[in-house]
Amino acid sequence: MQIFVYNPNSSAEMTALIAHTAQAAASAGWHIRTQGAQPPVPPSIEGHHDEALAVPAMLDALRRAEAEGAQAHVIACFDDPGIGAAREVVAGPVIGIAQAAMQVASLIASRFSVVTTLPRAIPIIEDLARNYGAGHCLRRVRAVDLPVLALEADPAHAHHLLRQEILAAKTQDGAEAVILGCAGMSEMCARLSEETGIAVIDGVHAAVRLAGALAGGGYQTAKTGAYAWPRDKSHDLTPVAQLRRPAG
Amino acid sequence: MQIFVYNPNSSAEMTALIAHTAQAAASAGWHIRTQGAQPPVPPSIEGHHDEALAVPAMLDALRRAEAEGAQAHVIACFDDPGIGAAREVVAGPVIGIAQAAMQVASLIASRFSVVTTLPRAIPIIEDLARNYGAGHCLRRVRAVDLPVLALEADPAHAHHLLRQEILAAKTQDGAEAVILGCAGMSEMCARLSEETGIAVIDGVHAAVRLAGALAGGGYQTAKTGAYAWPRDKSHDLTPVAQLRRPAG
Amino acid sequence: MQIFVYNPNSSAEMTALIAHTAQAAASAGWHIRTQGAQPPVPPSIEGHHDEALAVPAMLDALRRAEAEGAQAHVIACFDDPGIGAAREVVAGPVIGIAQAAMQVASLIASRFSVVTTLPRAIPIIEDLARNYGAGHCLRRVRAVDLPVLALEADPAHAHHLLRQEILAAKTQDGAEAVILGCAGMSEMCARLSEETGIAVIDGVHAAVRLAGALAGGGYQTAKTGAYAWPRDKSHDLTPVAQLRRPAG
Amino acid sequence: MQIFVYNPNSSAEMTALIAHTAQAAASAGWHIRTQGAQPPVPPSIEGHHDEALAVPAMLDALRRAEAEGAQAHVIACFDDPGIGAAREVVAGPVIGIAQAAMQVASLIASRFSVVTTLPRAIPIIEDLARNYGAGHCLRRVRAVDLPVLALEADPAHAHHLLRQEILAAKTQDGAEAVILGCAGMSEMCARLSEETGIAVIDGVHAAVRLAGALAGGGYQTAKTGAYAWPRDKSHDLTPVAQLRRPAG
Amino acid sequence: MQIFVYNPNSSAEMTALIAHTAQAAASAGWHIRTQGAQPPVPPSIEGHHDEALAVPAMLDALRRAEAEGAQAHVIACFDDPGIGAAREVVAGPVIGIAQAAMQVASLIASRFSVVTTLPRAIPIIEDLARNYGAGHCLRRVRAVDLPVLALEADPAHAHHLLRQEILAAKTQDGAEAVILGCAGMSEMCARLSEETGIAVIDGVHAAVRLAGALAGGGYQTAKTGAYAWPRDKSHDLTPVAQLRRPAG
Amino acid sequence: MQIFVYNPNSSAEMTALIAHTAQAAASAGWHIRTQGAQPPVPPSIEGHHDEALAVPAMLDALRRAEAEGAQAHVIACFDDPGIGAAREVVAGPVIGIAQAAMQVASLIASRFSVVTTLPRAIPIIEDLARNYGAGHCLRRVRAVDLPVLALEADPAHAHHLLRQEILAAKTQDGAEAVILGCAGMSEMCARLSEETGIAVIDGVHAAVRLAGALAGGGYQTAKTGAYAWPRDKSHDLTPVAQLRRPAG
Repeated sequence: MQIFVYNPNSSAEMTALIAHTAQAAASAGWHIRTQGAQPPVPPSIEGHHDEALAVPAMLDALRRAEAEGAQAHVIACFDDPGIGAAREVVAGPVIGIAQAAMQVASLIASRFSVVTTLPRAIPIIEDLARNYGAGHCLRRVRAVDLPVLALEADPAHAHHLLRQEILAAKTQDGAEAVILGCAGMSEMCARLSEETGIAVIDGVHAAVRLAGALAGGGYQTAKTGAYAWPRDKSHDLTPVAQLRRPAG
Repeated sequence: MQIFVYNPNSSAEMTALIAHTAQAAASAGWHIRTQGAQPPVPPSIEGHHDEALAVPAMLDALRRAEAEGAQAHVIACFDDPGIGAAREVVAGPVIGIAQAAMQVASLIASRFSVVTTLPRAIPIIEDLARNYGAGHCLRRVRAVDLPVLALEADPAHAHHLLRQEILAAKTQDGAEAVILGCAGMSEMCARLSEETGIAVIDGVHAAVRLAGALAGGGYQTAKTGAYAWPRDKSHDLTPVAQLRRPAG
Repeated sequence: MQIFVYNPNSSAEMTALIAHTAQAAASAGWHIRTQGAQPPVPPSIEGHHDEALAVPAMLDALRRAEAEGAQAHVIACFDDPGIGAAREVVAGPVIGIAQAAMQVASLIASRFSVVTTLPRAIPIIEDLARNYGAGHCLRRVRAVDLPVLALEADPAHAHHLLRQEILAAKTQDGAEAVILGCAGMSEMCARLSEETGIAVIDGVHAAVRLAGALAGGGYQTAKTGAYAWPRDKSHDLTPVAQLRRPAG
Repeated sequence: MQIFVYNPNSSAEMTALIAHTAQAAASAGWHIRTQGAQPPVPPSIEGHHDEALAVPAMLDALRRAEAEGAQAHVIACFDDPGIGAAREVVAGPVIGIAQAAMQVASLIASRFSVVTTLPRAIPIIEDLARNYGAGHCLRRVRAVDLPVLALEADPAHAHHLLRQEILAAKTQDGAEAVILGCAGMSEMCARLSEETGIAVIDGVHAAVRLAGALAGGGYQTAKTGAYAWPRDKSHDLTPVAQLRRPAG
Repeated sequence: MQIFVYNPNSSAEMTALIAHTAQAAASAGWHIRTQGAQPPVPPSIEGHHDEALAVPAMLDALRRAEAEGAQAHVIACFDDPGIGAAREVVAGPVIGIAQAAMQVASLIASRFSVVTTLPRAIPIIEDLARNYGAGHCLRRVRAVDLPVLALEADPAHAHHLLRQEILAAKTQDGAEAVILGCAGMSEMCARLSEETGIAVIDGVHAAVRLAGALAGGGYQTAKTGAYAWPRDKSHDLTPVAQLRRPAG
Repeated sequence: MQIFVYNPNSSAEMTALIAHTAQAAASAGWHIRTQGAQPPVPPSIEGHHDEALAVPAMLDALRRAEAEGAQAHVIACFDDPGIGAAREVVAGPVIGIAQAAMQVASLIASRFSVVTTLPRAIPIIEDLARNYGAGHCLRRVRAVDLPVLALEADPAHAHHLLRQEILAAKTQDGAEAVILGCAGMSEMCARLSEETGIAVIDGVHAAVRLAGALAGGGYQTAKTGAYAWPRDKSHDLTPVAQLRRPAG
C-alpha cells in the first residue's frame, strides 16, 4: 500500500523531517512517499494567504501521486489547507493532519488543547476544530509565538517553549491530551510526552496511521456530492433547452 | 497485534457474524479475537435499558482481554454502550462502532445519513452524532422498523428494506455516504453499496480499521482525566485532615 | 403521593444524608421513600465505570418501587447515571439531580457554575450540561478535589473548600447561582448560601421538588419513543416474512 | 402558598380559561390568583409588537401581586413575553409557560414538537427553544393557522385542526410529546392526548406545577446578576470621581 | 435619504451625543434625524426592565418617523431593545447598534470582545451575540462597572477605564477588534482606537452606515413572516367556520 | 470612493453581468471597478477545486486594485473563495457576496433560504452559513441543478427554475427572504421578487452596498490577528536565540 505524504510548504528541511516522522508511523508493508512543494510556494504556511498560494501545486502533486499508485494522501500542514479541493481531485482518502490529530484525540481523551506556533493561527485552528465537530472537546489553542521555520533554527528553544505550554495545558486547561499544532514539531512529540506526563499527539503520525487504516480498508472519497470530481465545463454553454427539453 | 472485538449482546449468531466481518477487516498480522456476552445479558441491544444490562459484563470482558494481550478494543454495538466506562478500565484504545463509522464518514464525505433498525434508536443515534461533533454532517437517521434479531431471521427482507432507505438517503437527504446503524447489518454492506451507487459504511469494519491504526501507532487511552482508572475507594473515609494537613 | 429517592451508591451514610435532605424538601402529603444500593455496588460514583456498575441494581429498585406505589423517581447522584434506562423501565417521571438542578438554576438565574468533588467529574458534568441544553448558561465546573466519601469524613474541611469555590464562582465566573455537584453536599447547601451571599442549589432538593410537581400534575414518561418499555425479544427470531407479509 | 398567574393579553375569555386550567393544576393548599391585562393592551399576543405593548402592564401587575403576597408568578402566554424584565421586578420565581412546557417535556420525552396558532409564531418559538437549550429536542413547530382568538370563536374547528397537527407530529416528526403553543389551547389538552395517543403538554398546567415546586421549595430569583432589581438612577450623574476616588 | 436614529432612553445629553456621532457617520445626502425618549421612560437602559419600559414609546416614534419620511431606522441602545417589534411596525430596515457592530466586526476581524458599562449587561450581550450568530467570534464581554449615565458625569474617568479594558481585550482575550457596548461611549471611539492600537467599533456609527447601505439599496423589512405587520384583531372573534368553510 | 468588484472566474459574460449589477447598486460618488479572472482560471467556480485555482490570481488583483486606489473589495462568487486570504493582503474591507447576502437577510428577515445552481454547492453553502453564524436562520439550500454557465446559455429556463424554487422556499420552508446563491443570477433578482411576492436578495448587490458602507465609514480590516499582513519569512531561519535572548 502506497501513502502519499505532501508537505504543502517549500522548506526542504521540513519535508525531510515530515518524511522521517511519516516513515516511523508506517506499519510493515506501507510504502510512504513524501514530497514537498517548490518555490515560489512559501517556505512555511502561516495564515490564509500562504495556504492559498500552496494549494494549486498541492492539487497537482496529489493527482500525479495517485496516477503513480498512491492509495491515500496526507496533507502535512496543520491548517489542513485545501482539504476539500484535494478530496475532489483524487479518489483515495485525503487526511489532513489537524483533522487526524483531533479524531485520534477524541478517541483517547475527552478534552484536549493544541499548541501551535504563531498567535495568528489560533482562530484558524479554533475554526478547524469547530468545523470538525471537536469544538466542545477543545480546551484551548496555545501559541509559543515562534515562526514555523524558527522551530528548525533553534530546536532547543522551541522544545523548551513547547514543554511549558504543554504543562500549562495539563494543569490550567484540564486537557487530557495535547496536540502539536504544526508539522514542524513532529520529532519532539515522544520526548515532550515523556517529560510532561500527558499524551502528546502529532498530526503527521496520526494522519499516516489513519491514511493506512482507510486505504487498507478499501475506503475511497465519496464522489456523489461535495467531493465529486471537478466539473468539465466545456459543454456548459450549450443551451440547456437543447440538452434537457425534448426536440419537437 | 491483538484486537479484541466485543459484541455486548448475547446473540451467538450475531457474534459469529461480527467475527466474520472483523476478520475480513483485519490487515495481515492483526489477531482478531471476537467474543459475545452470555445470557442473562439481552440477545439484542435496543434502547438504554438493554445497554445498561450489557455494560458490566462488557467491562469484565475488556479487562480480561487486555490482561490476555489485547492492545485495542472494539465495542460492536451501534449505541456505543458504556464507551466511557470501557475507556476507564483498560489502557488500550477503545473504539465504538458508531464513533468509528462517523469518523470515517467525515473523512470521505461531507454529509451522511444513518440507517438503523427500530425507530426508538433514532434519538439515541442523533445524540451520539451530536456528542461526537458530527451533528452538522448528519443528514438524517432512518429506521427500517425491524428488530435487531429480525435482521438474521429474514435477511432477504432486511436487505430489501435497507436498500430502500439507502436510496432514499441518497436522493432525498443529499447524503454522500450512508452508515449502517447496527452491527447486525455488517455483512450486507458491500452489496448494498454496489446496488445503490453510494458509499455504505459499516461500523464494525470501520472500528477494526481504526483500532488497528491506533494500537499499531502506539496510542493509549489518556489516564489523566475523564478516563483515569476507576478509583479504589478503600481509603476514602480516612479523615482528609489526616491526609492533607501537616500533623502538628 | 409517593416519591422514590434512590441513591445509586452503597454508602449507607450518604443514603441517610440524602433521605434527610429529601424529606426536608417534601411538601405536606408527599411520602418520600429513600433507598440506597448494596455492595458490591461501589460506595461512591466517581466516573463512568462506577456509574455502569450502579445502574442495573438501580433499574431493579425503581421497578420494584413503582410496583409498590411510587409515582415519581429521583436518582440522587449528580452524574444522572442510567437516566435514559430508568425512564424506560418505569412509567412515573424520573428526575436526575443534575438535570433538576440545572432546570431550577435556569429558572432563577441566567448563568451558573457547578462545584463538584473530583476533577475527573468536570468533563462529565460539562457534557451533561450540554446534553440538557444548559451549556450556554454554565459558566464553569469547579472541583474541590476531594473524593465523594471524604465529604463525610471531614465535613468541616469540605465545607471550607466548597465555600472558597463558591466565592470564586461568584466573583471570577460571574455566576448568579452555584449548583452543588454531588448528592453528598446537600446538607451544607443553606449555610453555604448564607455565607457566600449567592443562591446555592442542591440537586436532591431540586429533584424532589420537581418530582412532586410532575407526579402531582399527572405527568408520566412518554412511552412512544426513546423511553418506550424495554422490548421483549422472545418473538424476534420468527421470520419477519411470516409476521408481515400476507400468506399466499 | 400563593401563585400569581398573569394573562398578558386583555381577552377576558382567555383569562377565565387560564384561571380554570391553573386552578385545576394546583395542589391542595396552593392559592391561585389569576389576572389578565386591560385594554389598550391587545386582546391577543401575536408577535413581538403585541408582546412589547403587553409587558409594562405586566410588570406592574407582578409587582403588585408580590406586594400582596404572591410567592411565585406564571406568565401565561407562550411567547414568554418580558420574562427577563419580570425576573428583575419581583423576588419570587417567574415561570413562563413556554419554558415550563419545554422543561417538563424534556423530563418525560427525548423529542417533542410544538403546535401553535399562526405561522408567524414559528420562528419566535424556535428561538425560545434555542435560548432555553431545547433546540436539539425540538422536532418541529407546527401552526394550525388560526388567530389566537379564533380558538375561542370556534373551539370545535380548532380542536379538529390541533388533532391533525398532533397526529402529524407523532407520525411524521417522530415527536414523543407535543406541546400546545398557546395559552388558549389549555382546556383541550387532556382530550387531545387521549385521542392521539401521545403525551400532550399544556404550558399553563406545566408552569403552575413548576411555580408551586419552586415557591414551595423556597427558591427565589437570583438578584446578583442579570435579574438584579432595576437600578435607581437618581445618583448616576454624581461625578464618579466624587463617588470613587478618595478626596484629597 | 432620511435615516431615523432613536435613543430609547430619556437622557437628553445622551441623545445629543448620539446625534453628533450619527451625523458624523453620515455620507453626503443622508439626512439624519435623531430623537430620544421622554420621561417617564428611564434615563438609561440597564437591564430588561428598563428595556421593557422604553419599547412602547420607541414603536410609536418609529412609526411616526416613517410616516414623516424615514427610510431606515437605528435603535441606539446596545441591548437592541424591541428590535423584533420595531421590525413589525415599520417597512424600512431597522438596525440595532449591537447587531450592526457585530456584523461590521465580523467583516473586518475574526475575533472580537465587547466592553460595556455594568456587569449585569454581560449575559444580555452574550445572549445577543449568540442570537446574532456571533457567539463563536465573541471572545469576551468586559464591564467597566460604571452606570451608563456616569459616562457623561466623568468622561475622563470613563475613558481611562475603557482604555484599560480594551488593552486587556487585546492582550488577554486575543481580540482583533473591540466593540463599545453602550451608545454613550460613541464619542470616545476614535481616540481609544488610536491609543490602544486596535480597531474599536462604535455601534451607533456602524448602525448608521448599515442603515444608509440598506435604505440606499432599496431593502425593506420582509413582511411575510416574523416581521409581518401587527395583526388587526377586530375580526378574530368571527367564527372561523363562517370565514373558512363554504356556506351551505 | 472606489470599490473593486472582482469576479474570481474567467467568464467574460459573467464579469459583464456582475459589473452591471454592481454599478446599479452603487450610490452617487461611488466608483465601481469590476474585473474578472483570465484563463486558465476556470470559467465558473463549482466546488473547492475551482475555488482553489481562482484564489491566487484574485489575491494579486486585489493587491493591485488597492495600490491603484480601491478602498473596499467585493468577491463576486457565492462560495466567498479565499476570503480570509484576501483580508490578509489588503487593508480595505473585503466583502464576500455570501456573507453580505446573509448579513442583509438577517437584518430584514428572521429566516431565509438560498437557491443555488448545482447540488454539490449545497453543503458548501450550509457550511458558510454555519461559519458566518447564520445557521439557525437558514431554512434550506435549494439547487436548480444547472451549471453556472447554463444560467447565461438559457436565461429563460434558468428563470423558470429559480422561480419554482423560490416559491417552494416561501411556501414549504417558511422562508421570509430568499438569497440567490450565485453571482450569475444577479440580473433576475428584481423580477423574481416581484413574481414570487417574497424578498429576493442578490449577493453582488448586497456586497456592493456593504462595501460602500464600510469604506465610507472608514473601516479597515484589523491587522492584529488572523488577518495580519502575510509574514515575510526571510529572517525566520535566524536562530531565535540570537533574536530573543540578550547577548552576553
